[in-house]
Amino acid sequence: MSAYIKDLVTKAKKSSFALARLSTLEKNRALKVMARDIIKNKDYILKENLKDLKIAYKNKLKQSFIDRLKLTDKRIKEMSKSLSAVAKLVDPVGKVISATTRPNGIRIKRVRVPIGVVLIVYEARPNVTSDCVGLLFKTSNVGILRGGSGALYSNKAIARVLNRALKRSGISFPAFFVVERTQRNLIDELLKQDTYIDLVIPRGGESLIRKVAKSSAIPVIKHYKGVCHIFVDKEADIKKALNISINAKTQRPSVCNAVETILVHQDIARKFLPLLKKEFDKRGVEIRGDKKTFAVIPGINQAKEADWAIEYLDLIVSIKIVKDITEAITHINTYGSFHTDSIITKSRKNIEKFLKEVDSACCFSNISTRFSDGFQFGLGAEIGISTDKLHARGPMGLEELTTYKWVATGNGQIRK
Amino acid sequence: MSAYIKDLVTKAKKSSFALARLSTLEKNRALKVMARDIIKNKDYILKENLKDLKIAYKNKLKQSFIDRLKLTDKRIKEMSKSLSAVAKLVDPVGKVISATTRPNGIRIKRVRVPIGVVLIVYEARPNVTSDCVGLLFKTSNVGILRGGSGALYSNKAIARVLNRALKRSGISFPAFFVVERTQRNLIDELLKQDTYIDLVIPRGGESLIRKVAKSSAIPVIKHYKGVCHIFVDKEADIKKALNISINAKTQRPSVCNAVETILVHQDIARKFLPLLKKEFDKRGVEIRGDKKTFAVIPGINQAKEADWAIEYLDLIVSIKIVKDITEAITHINTYGSFHTDSIITKSRKNIEKFLKEVDSACCFSNISTRFSDGFQFGLGAEIGISTDKLHARGPMGLEELTTYKWVATGNGQIRK
Repeated sequence: MSAYIKDLVTKAKKSSFALARLSTLEKNRALKVMARDIIKNKDYILKENLKDLKIAYKNKLKQSFIDRLKLTDKRIKEMSKSLSAVAKLVDPVGKVISATTRPNGIRIKRVRVPIGVVLIVYEARPNVTSDCVGLLFKTSNVGILRGGSGALYSNKAIARVLNRALKRSGISFPAFFVVERTQRNLIDELLKQDTYIDLVIPRGGESLIRKVAKSSAIPVIKHYKGVCHIFVDKEADIKKALNISINAKTQRPSVCNAVETILVHQDIARKFLPLLKKEFDKRGVEIRGDKKTFAVIPGINQAKEADWAIEYLDLIVSIKIVKDITEAITHINTYGSFHTDSIITKSRKNIEKFLKEVDSACCFSNISTRFSDGFQFGLGAEIGISTDKLHARGPMGLEELTTYKWVATGNGQIRK
Repeated sequence: MSAYIKDLVTKAKKSSFALARLSTLEKNRALKVMARDIIKNKDYILKENLKDLKIAYKNKLKQSFIDRLKLTDKRIKEMSKSLSAVAKLVDPVGKVISATTRPNGIRIKRVRVPIGVVLIVYEARPNVTSDCVGLLFKTSNVGILRGGSGALYSNKAIARVLNRALKRSGISFPAFFVVERTQRNLIDELLKQDTYIDLVIPRGGESLIRKVAKSSAIPVIKHYKGVCHIFVDKEADIKKALNISINAKTQRPSVCNAVETILVHQDIARKFLPLLKKEFDKRGVEIRGDKKTFAVIPGINQAKEADWAIEYLDLIVSIKIVKDITEAITHINTYGSFHTDSIITKSRKNIEKFLKEVDSACCFSNISTRFSDGFQFGLGAEIGISTDKLHARGPMGLEELTTYKWVATGNGQIRK
């Protein structure tokens, strides 16, 4: 272990004990100062961001990279707003999940506590830095933030502003750490520190997440792709099915809760598909269909086997005609990514079957897949959407950034 | 992937969907038949167990190995009783954890669901086979059971009996799988199947658990050692402190919730330690103390640095005098294994501080560490005691063998 890493993780662990002792009031006060200071120091942050942007331009990086990297007045306002919003959310730490008194008089509670030290690995998106600091600080977790090296000037500037805000709020220890070195093997080293780091959350593309998951000795919560489905059942309300399909595909095609595959019951296909094609054509959506779909709406592209498992993140949709709800569910459980799937139907029986048997984090009926989101769910915040089954599933809010401990109090009881 | 593994994990995944459709009633009925059949087939199981025992004798395996391997009338009765007991427990599957209606009319629930396919890796202890089948079946999880190869005849016999019981109960698919091949690299291959297996729980010694955790691509819940502490504060009730220390060390020294280190406040050491030494001497407990302890109760062995992190699992205890509660908490958070720790004191302030700041799964006041146990906590069952922080912490009962999904129902809502 390099001296740099050793120093970093030791300090982080130490801070985690100090952070766990802060009251909700102290944390909220500091979050409000952070929110104010981000705005106050806007010019400094933008100036540092410009250094990152210059390097990106020089290296001729893609426009999508620049878009994510670039801070603007608006984005800085949003960063500040997020911090204020988190200050207003209920603090999950200390919440009693359950309590019971045993026959021997021992009182047992399950209490929410911070996880400890959380490593976030993410791309060159400086706003993620302050968002994560806010969410982790509110839940009394020490963040180790390892953003893309292309955003290092920005991240260091944001960290400096937030750290000064913390100090001015009377917090005398470092409550988060931005990894300031950019060697590639640094991440591999960090991922071995399971004595000091309790959780890793990689945020970004699938390949980044797979890489982290593969080499980590620390538990990882993964946010893989969203191959989301809509199943238009034979008893669907055609108008709702159309609205929902259009919304789920076109409202924001680049995100993980956009729909990628529409499954259509064979008994409704001739009625529904021509209308859908018309709407999709209007909006420039490319359709890739199976043979049966092609027979109903000719002129579309043919879907290959690989299409059923692709997250297009684009104005492309695959469509398949199925003979019944069972085939739809089997398709979803075979090709899906266990993210979000929605059935459109008036049949209560089929709604129940679909919601029970689809093995995804979010199972919907008669709504757009786009609702799979921490804010839409009323969590007030979101650090990601877990496609894992353990600890946290689907949209992760503040509560999912905590764990629990068992607290048992007695009066001298011994085991018989 | 070998054909054997491929076939096994594919079948297991398929079964998991079928198992998730069973009702609580169907599961309980089958569990009762399993409980009866274990007793009915006692002679067959004992006969097969004898084959394993003969091999163990021939290979001159240790007495502790034989003790774990050997089935008796009593043990078979206990296996049957566990299955009956699990049938009577409340089924966590389908339980609504939370429910809310959003301003747009969408109704959102979090519902408990099975995890899916769970791999249990354990030592040559045939009773674990039926215990795990019971717990996993009740929670609608498909178990892949990989017990020590020294118990293969026994495990196969138990599996045969339980499978026939399932069939007689009308369950037409395999609800669990016993790995019947014993090649060592089989485990490594299994641990790569993260598409098919959702969770691994290794049960056994620390080295087995570390090995599994290191090579697994699947999330692992670890049950590492228990380096449990008692802190005798200066305001402790001496009699209770004595009773609890004796109970925690000697009632069953070989288990993970036995105490290994006793920390004593310096202001109570001269009063408490001589009494404790007398009691421990009577019971043959070896004391290893730091220098200050040695000064108070001479004639004991001196503790080395390594002693503070050892799980003795034996009639040995380490003792250290600390200057205050803060030093005690720091010691526990530095050398402990985050399993179970108890403070003995009349000070409410110190109880609160200890319960909040000790970073362990189970934080106790004025009771024996031996209470850290699923049955003692009223969970009705226990598949292990997690020393991990994610998903499950401390004693794991049925609920900890489930995850949740988000279920959202609406009436045509689309995202604005």
